[in-house]
Amino acid sequence: MEHIVGELPKTMKAAVMNRPFDIEIQELPVPVVGKDEVLIKVMAVGVCGSDIHYYEHGKIGRYVVEKPIILGHECSGIVAKIGEDVTRFKVGDRVAIEPGVTCGRCEQCKSGRYNLCQEVQFLATPPVDGAFAQYIKHREDFLFQIPDDLSFEEAALVEPFSVGIHAARRTNLQPGSAVAIMGMGPVGLTAVAAVKAFGAETVIVSDLEPKRLEAAKKLGATHLINILEQDVDEEIKRITKRRGVDVAFETAGNPIALQSALRSVRRGGKLAIVGLPPQDEIGVNVPLIADNEIDIYGIFRYANTYPQGIKFLASGNSDVKFLITDRYSLDQTKDAMEQARTNKKESLKVVVYPNGLL
Amino acid sequence: MEHIVGELPKTMKAAVMNRPFDIEIQELPVPVVGKDEVLIKVMAVGVCGSDIHYYEHGKIGRYVVEKPIILGHECSGIVAKIGEDVTRFKVGDRVAIEPGVTCGRCEQCKSGRYNLCQEVQFLATPPVDGAFAQYIKHREDFLFQIPDDLSFEEAALVEPFSVGIHAARRTNLQPGSAVAIMGMGPVGLTAVAAVKAFGAETVIVSDLEPKRLEAAKKLGATHLINILEQDVDEEIKRITKRRGVDVAFETAGNPIALQSALRSVRRGGKLAIVGLPPQDEIGVNVPLIADNEIDIYGIFRYANTYPQGIKFLASGNSDVKFLITDRYSLDQTKDAMEQARTNKKESLKVVVYPNGLL
Amino acid sequence: MEHIVGELPKTMKAAVMNRPFDIEIQELPVPVVGKDEVLIKVMAVGVCGSDIHYYEHGKIGRYVVEKPIILGHECSGIVAKIGEDVTRFKVGDRVAIEPGVTCGRCEQCKSGRYNLCQEVQFLATPPVDGAFAQYIKHREDFLFQIPDDLSFEEAALVEPFSVGIHAARRTNLQPGSAVAIMGMGPVGLTAVAAVKAFGAETVIVSDLEPKRLEAAKKLGATHLINILEQDVDEEIKRITKRRGVDVAFETAGNPIALQSALRSVRRGGKLAIVGLPPQDEIGVNVPLIADNEIDIYGIFRYANTYPQGIKFLASGNSDVKFLITDRYSLDQTKDAMEQARTNKKESLKVVVYPNGLL
Amino acid sequence: MEHIVGELPKTMKAAVMNRPFDIEIQELPVPVVGKDEVLIKVMAVGVCGSDIHYYEHGKIGRYVVEKPIILGHECSGIVAKIGEDVTRFKVGDRVAIEPGVTCGRCEQCKSGRYNLCQEVQFLATPPVDGAFAQYIKHREDFLFQIPDDLSFEEAALVEPFSVGIHAARRTNLQPGSAVAIMGMGPVGLTAVAAVKAFGAETVIVSDLEPKRLEAAKKLGATHLINILEQDVDEEIKRITKRRGVDVAFETAGNPIALQSALRSVRRGGKLAIVGLPPQDEIGVNVPLIADNEIDIYGIFRYANTYPQGIKFLASGNSDVKFLITDRYSLDQTKDAMEQARTNKKESLKVVVYPNGLL
Repeated sequence: MEHIVGELPKTMKAAVMNRPFDIEIQELPVPVVGKDEVLIKVMAVGVCGSDIHYYEHGKIGRYVVEKPIILGHECSGIVAKIGEDVTRFKVGDRVAIEPGVTCGRCEQCKSGRYNLCQEVQFLATPPVDGAFAQYIKHREDFLFQIPDDLSFEEAALVEPFSVGIHAARRTNLQPGSAVAIMGMGPVGLTAVAAVKAFGAETVIVSDLEPKRLEAAKKLGATHLINILEQDVDEEIKRITKRRGVDVAFETAGNPIALQSALRSVRRGGKLAIVGLPPQDEIGVNVPLIADNEIDIYGIFRYANTYPQGIKFLASGNSDVKFLITDRYSLDQTKDAMEQARTNKKESLKVVVYPNGLL
Repeated sequence: MEHIVGELPKTMKAAVMNRPFDIEIQELPVPVVGKDEVLIKVMAVGVCGSDIHYYEHGKIGRYVVEKPIILGHECSGIVAKIGEDVTRFKVGDRVAIEPGVTCGRCEQCKSGRYNLCQEVQFLATPPVDGAFAQYIKHREDFLFQIPDDLSFEEAALVEPFSVGIHAARRTNLQPGSAVAIMGMGPVGLTAVAAVKAFGAETVIVSDLEPKRLEAAKKLGATHLINILEQDVDEEIKRITKRRGVDVAFETAGNPIALQSALRSVRRGGKLAIVGLPPQDEIGVNVPLIADNEIDIYGIFRYANTYPQGIKFLASGNSDVKFLITDRYSLDQTKDAMEQARTNKKESLKVVVYPNGLL
Repeated sequence: MEHIVGELPKTMKAAVMNRPFDIEIQELPVPVVGKDEVLIKVMAVGVCGSDIHYYEHGKIGRYVVEKPIILGHECSGIVAKIGEDVTRFKVGDRVAIEPGVTCGRCEQCKSGRYNLCQEVQFLATPPVDGAFAQYIKHREDFLFQIPDDLSFEEAALVEPFSVGIHAARRTNLQPGSAVAIMGMGPVGLTAVAAVKAFGAETVIVSDLEPKRLEAAKKLGATHLINILEQDVDEEIKRITKRRGVDVAFETAGNPIALQSALRSVRRGGKLAIVGLPPQDEIGVNVPLIADNEIDIYGIFRYANTYPQGIKFLASGNSDVKFLITDRYSLDQTKDAMEQARTNKKESLKVVVYPNGLL
Repeated sequence: MEHIVGELPKTMKAAVMNRPFDIEIQELPVPVVGKDEVLIKVMAVGVCGSDIHYYEHGKIGRYVVEKPIILGHECSGIVAKIGEDVTRFKVGDRVAIEPGVTCGRCEQCKSGRYNLCQEVQFLATPPVDGAFAQYIKHREDFLFQIPDDLSFEEAALVEPFSVGIHAARRTNLQPGSAVAIMGMGPVGLTAVAAVKAFGAETVIVSDLEPKRLEAAKKLGATHLINILEQDVDEEIKRITKRRGVDVAFETAGNPIALQSALRSVRRGGKLAIVGLPPQDEIGVNVPLIADNEIDIYGIFRYANTYPQGIKFLASGNSDVKFLITDRYSLDQTKDAMEQARTNKKESLKVVVYPNGLL
């Protein structure tokens, strides 16, 4: 027996990408939930760089779009129906959706690093459909109740925010630290909020867009470096009095940013590699790593971050709402993608609202 | 008042390097110990790659030999005299000598990472003299008593062995692990002994010298890869059933070895960079680091390893004595350097005995 | 469709405990496997202290035997049938059985501490039946293939051995350490093997049974203390030259042993509480904990230990086979329980073989 | 050669405790600095519980006042003169004083746990004199420059604050955590500020003094429990929805508080023992520790906390100034001790200003 409240439609609208640059609104059946699954009425979905990459190229590395796919994975919504074994939720609950559903049974899952699970089903990663749809189903243990004072669009931001939390944990970021974050795209920006939540004292950020640097400042960055106008190495030396930062995050996916990040780190400090550069081989100063005993941590998604992320955003200490600059209905999903892609209006975060603008 | 037993000479012989390739035996005053220092009659000194580098090039990176210097830092000996505040030793004690004397007062020292101390006085690192001499003085807290059944030449090996212990600790090497070690020079070879002491189950090693691979096998390596004859990637995949190793150590200082080492690591595994490549910039597969959440640890010398290293070697579990293939008196220091440098007889470790062969 | 090889019986024998001291052999249906489950022909089952406790008292803390139950959870066997979704095993595979099947979806499971899962189904913990039966079913991810040279009875010992591995990990036991283990019951004895696998150098053990102390010595204990004849505190001071041990394990479940264990630890050392004392409140020297900054770790079962445990036992380095002193057929399960309970013949480990003695 | 600026007096006033309850102002020679020492004009000294304990009992555990002693160790001041080897300071610098000067050479110091150094010289711990004096000398590496906007009395609070920072680090306190702190004396109160700096979300505090609870609230405590009026266990269950806190600190030195603290911790959570109970043996629920895999950490002073503590207090995020409720001149040191001891006016922190009220 399934617990249903109110009347659910049989069909729904979804934005299906048939091939690169071709997104079509289709009428599809509302998903049928399994025993441990929940049907969610999707309220807000952020557009992520990976969505844009699939939209432009039809693939990311080994993940290839081979049949029509629904994109979108930074999302939140309302519980619309629950499977018969679901115990944590009831219809009407407001939830943030952690997009990767892992197996829970492999070595990685069992050791607490479920982000490395090879069996993961991740929204909007081929062949798994994503959230640019009025309804999706999801396993209950990857849903997280959100408090009333957290909006759906903020809840959608828990996803990129999670990457920063995960990087802060992996680097064991300490209160009072000096941190450099290279690249102020959405991941870099939410990482600023994350390191502030971890107590970072000095937060140096770099980008080439003044608007993004200003956004970083609002989130708590203490020093802004415009890479077109300033010498990153010199600035960081100056700010840290030649000591270097305790921890650097590279989020730009740019070889030069990576090299700067490595040089910015103090003796015995740490570097998190968050951004993916377009090419495989990057020149790295290896003797520097050894001489200074730098630790480098690869960052792939996140694990166990949602409860913390929701607390941070709900506490009001990390006010990230202003990052959402562009809002679209589901019918306008293609426009949303184009806006995020071409960034005509200097967007920060573009969000789609599959069940109507809030 | 100083505590003296027996009669000490006023002068001693020392092997002084005036400039590259020019080593001269000189008669020098026996060092005068300070209050917290110990005079050691040096019994065995291993020749290290860094000694050879100074001998050939007169510098290593920012360390430049600007005046005559005594080389040698892998050493052991007998306490010959103690300063007035010395409490841990008495004349006649047999000791291993940890070569780097740190300040104990900087942030790095106080946080347990004294190997990163910027004020360190390290034997045979310009302008500090080393141990190719009949006597040296050293601060007592960097001397470690050795048991009777540990020979002086084994005690000298605690130094390279320490690098492997330090790398094993930094990578939190677990019993039962699969480990790959690239490069079977003295550091790579003693690292084999170190990872065995940490309980590594599968120990895959690579080199191009059959003799070195055989030595690795004696020390406990379970799989040997001759890089001239075998495909390192394929072999490691085969041995680990495509899983990859838990931890890799790069000790060869070679870009290709570094790249192999990185590829050899399993998802969520770790890489220690021990060897220093000759050039600054190495091409590294950065997306691989991020996608697989690999941790990379720079390794610079070691800290707090001597007690453990002595226990390992004294326990007889790590029989490293056979690594010493060439023995020279102090008068033959130049021959020792040439032997280590040109390696005509396929040496593993060359040792100088400043007070006569044992 | 299920994959079956050979012919399986419809019914099987099982040793059912109706109430304390009343064990009856019954003919029961062979379990029906679910999609992700495996049917195992049980080959060896060790008798654990908890089995005896249920046998004597019908409960352990909040776990109460309210209806007839099959005991036994230290077990191994042969895959007899696999559910349709099972991918890791085929009929005929030899396996060690990790007895606790966890949910994989709660906060504890997701963070790598699945031993703390509140939804666990643990063999022989009411109301879950155990392994004193010819067949049991089990979820595939808690089965671990064993190599041909590991016997079934050794594989059954992976369970108690896991407790020692888990305690060694929780205390971050380092090679070269000095360790004290209080209590040489099966958990204490297998913990000796575990700490040796982690490279412990000095292993001090205490008990009142000379036979158990001798067994500890065989497993690698370096110092034996008979608590009836020797002063534990004085002995440990003497052995460690007043320094204390780096890590102590209390496995006896005895208040006096716990207090000794705490006093035995060096300044900055660690204590693992493995044994459960019969009463709730134990007098503990709290100022000592604070003054010496001792870390105390509660130990509850284990997580992620089976692969490592199997490797250790299969490597031959930890030869634990001799610990099995008493062997019984399934029909003799009550005798086995009585033997373990009353210990007339000075047993170490009592094992039941549900499908005939090996 | 010593660097002197301005003219220093030859003698100074100091508050000497001849025996319990007998404090006398004496004229003593200004200390002579060694090469690596700094003379500090003492500006503010907090009265600590340990000062009061010596004042009342003449001893704390194994530390016995056997000759007249100057108490006081929570202090700050101005550099008045520097030894010839001092490089980090110049006359006129404003500094916080870390009171324990460690050897830097023992195993504990070298491994980063210098608070466990057995050779420490700790201000106001017999036989070492403390800071109730116009001048003290101190080794330069235990002095920390403070920014202009941090007052001397705030800088004196870095000492008790350090205990909380150390406990937060030892328990690896994560942002978003729920924390319980038992006992709102000065250490408990500053611990509230510390856990907030580490990002604690829920901070539950208990005490019996409403004024102290109110002070905790000002510092960021989210839930106050008056132990005279409320059931601590029930309240914590209610606040945490039966989950328990992630981390508890016991700072009261009270057996009942310790037992509450232990019960308050969630499965897999942590307890820091900060307070010293008057008696040695406390009844502790040991099975609870094991069943719930609780980690318990003894806390003894602190290490490497001053830079972070100064940053926190200077950032203005942790406004602790209001904790200082009572101010005395050096001549009134006895009054200060009596005030702190008898607490007639409901003091929080009593401070002595050896060179005049600020």
